[in-house]
Amino acid sequence: MPAHFKKVAIIGVGLIGGSLAMAMKHKRMADTIVGIGRGTANLELAMRLGVVDSIALDIESGVAGADLVVVAVPVLKIGETIKKAASGLTSPCIITDVGSVKKAIIDECEAALPEGITYVPGHPIAGTESSGVEAAMANLYNERVCILTPTSNTPQSDIGKIREMWQEAGSKVVIMDAAAHDRLLSAISHLPHIIAYTLVNTVAAAGEKNIDFLKYSAGGFRDFTRIASSSPEMWADVCAMNKDNIIGMIENFQRQLEALKRLMAHDDFKGVKANFEGAKKIRDSITTDAKK
Amino acid sequence: MPAHFKKVAIIGVGLIGGSLAMAMKHKRMADTIVGIGRGTANLELAMRLGVVDSIALDIESGVAGADLVVVAVPVLKIGETIKKAASGLTSPCIITDVGSVKKAIIDECEAALPEGITYVPGHPIAGTESSGVEAAMANLYNERVCILTPTSNTPQSDIGKIREMWQEAGSKVVIMDAAAHDRLLSAISHLPHIIAYTLVNTVAAAGEKNIDFLKYSAGGFRDFTRIASSSPEMWADVCAMNKDNIIGMIENFQRQLEALKRLMAHDDFKGVKANFEGAKKIRDSITTDAKK
Repeated sequence: MPAHFKKVAIIGVGLIGGSLAMAMKHKRMADTIVGIGRGTANLELAMRLGVVDSIALDIESGVAGADLVVVAVPVLKIGETIKKAASGLTSPCIITDVGSVKKAIIDECEAALPEGITYVPGHPIAGTESSGVEAAMANLYNERVCILTPTSNTPQSDIGKIREMWQEAGSKVVIMDAAAHDRLLSAISHLPHIIAYTLVNTVAAAGEKNIDFLKYSAGGFRDFTRIASSSPEMWADVCAMNKDNIIGMIENFQRQLEALKRLMAHDDFKGVKANFEGAKKIRDSITTDAKK
Repeated sequence: MPAHFKKVAIIGVGLIGGSLAMAMKHKRMADTIVGIGRGTANLELAMRLGVVDSIALDIESGVAGADLVVVAVPVLKIGETIKKAASGLTSPCIITDVGSVKKAIIDECEAALPEGITYVPGHPIAGTESSGVEAAMANLYNERVCILTPTSNTPQSDIGKIREMWQEAGSKVVIMDAAAHDRLLSAISHLPHIIAYTLVNTVAAAGEKNIDFLKYSAGGFRDFTRIASSSPEMWADVCAMNKDNIIGMIENFQRQLEALKRLMAHDDFKGVKANFEGAKKIRDSITTDAKK
């Protein structure tokens, strides 16, 4: 049986929250959807686009009567937003979120939730090149992976409802420990962003008096560093919230790079080739199909 | 006046050499083009595809009578191939190449060239995701940059002819010192490939007992590491031939990454954000237009 909710409150109606609202409407998962945010202009745009059925500027009154609250605000604000929403709710209600870091959010808010308000921590891994509700689309989550990181307090039936919701939106749902999620994301997402930013800074700093290196960067370099155009604020927040894992992953990377540099310094280019061959084999094995 | 040659010999008829042959035919830059290589099957395919007018397996006899020889073999083989070709030629003849490292090639072969055989070192910066003559196309060099790195021995008139050839093929031609070229490429091309290989190796090594990190890498990580699917042999050769510049650039990158890690370790997330903002600003400033 597909997921169904009477009143869904989406706090933060941007690309991520707006796309989930559209997917829920498309699959008739909600009787009504209220969009909650701080900006009237954005909320009115969401109304005009048909993304939500009603809007509210105040979280506590906006969520009243909701049986599902989706918190889709910037990651550093999720914990306090969950606590704020919870205080306006009546049982039974499920709160879920979409943050790309999980343990810090759980630690911040779970203990503060009142009886009957349950929290299913979630993270849909979906593109964020564009942003804003005008970029929202009902199929954003199609063929993507959504990770849920329930705690020992999360009721199985509520995990099941949120799992069904994401499956209806087209995603493959994986259940994982929050700490494992944060280690995984530090490797496949957070480290690559840090590397891309650092690579751009390195090349810019290497430019010479008579040659602006960036002038020659239109091709491969530009493509490779696309993710260095991501939001600095969002990524600095992610670094703050997943600091230990990210530092550990940077150190893994530093060890690998140092080892490769030593092969070169010792003229061991057979070793360099073997190193690249290993990476190519791994890279070529990554399937495009998230469902495999 | 556009470039024109009587007999052009292309040594190495793959994507790069084959595409130049096609561009030369398209713009009627040659009376006849001979394709030279070690593999009969590949050369016969080049004939069938109309990329070249005739083929030869032996370099010395194949280049006889040519007034232009284009060496488009793997970078580690360019020096010896130029020397081999030169010994079969009669003056006047221009030899040019397409290697992505320049100084080591010049050092290896320039002194060995006989009187009347001139060498115009070149490097068209064009994509190499695909390979082989079957991927060749007449417009591969359109709107790309081609760098020429003449030495003090290269006659101005010959630089002019090779410049015209690449311009006819659609490229913007830049003249640069070979050492400057090698530093530039170590930054915008060689370092990014090393970083991509290293990132893939890091993430693969970070996988845990119960979670294969690569299984979750279908999205952004896969796109970001696309260049880690490049030829390990070619890139190990580039590392060997541009070793000092690449090691220097790796060390620049290591310093930048260490500084960023320290900001995180000291909880200076304003500093982290400023670091990312600087990178984003630079990245966003890179134009897609190679001509600017």
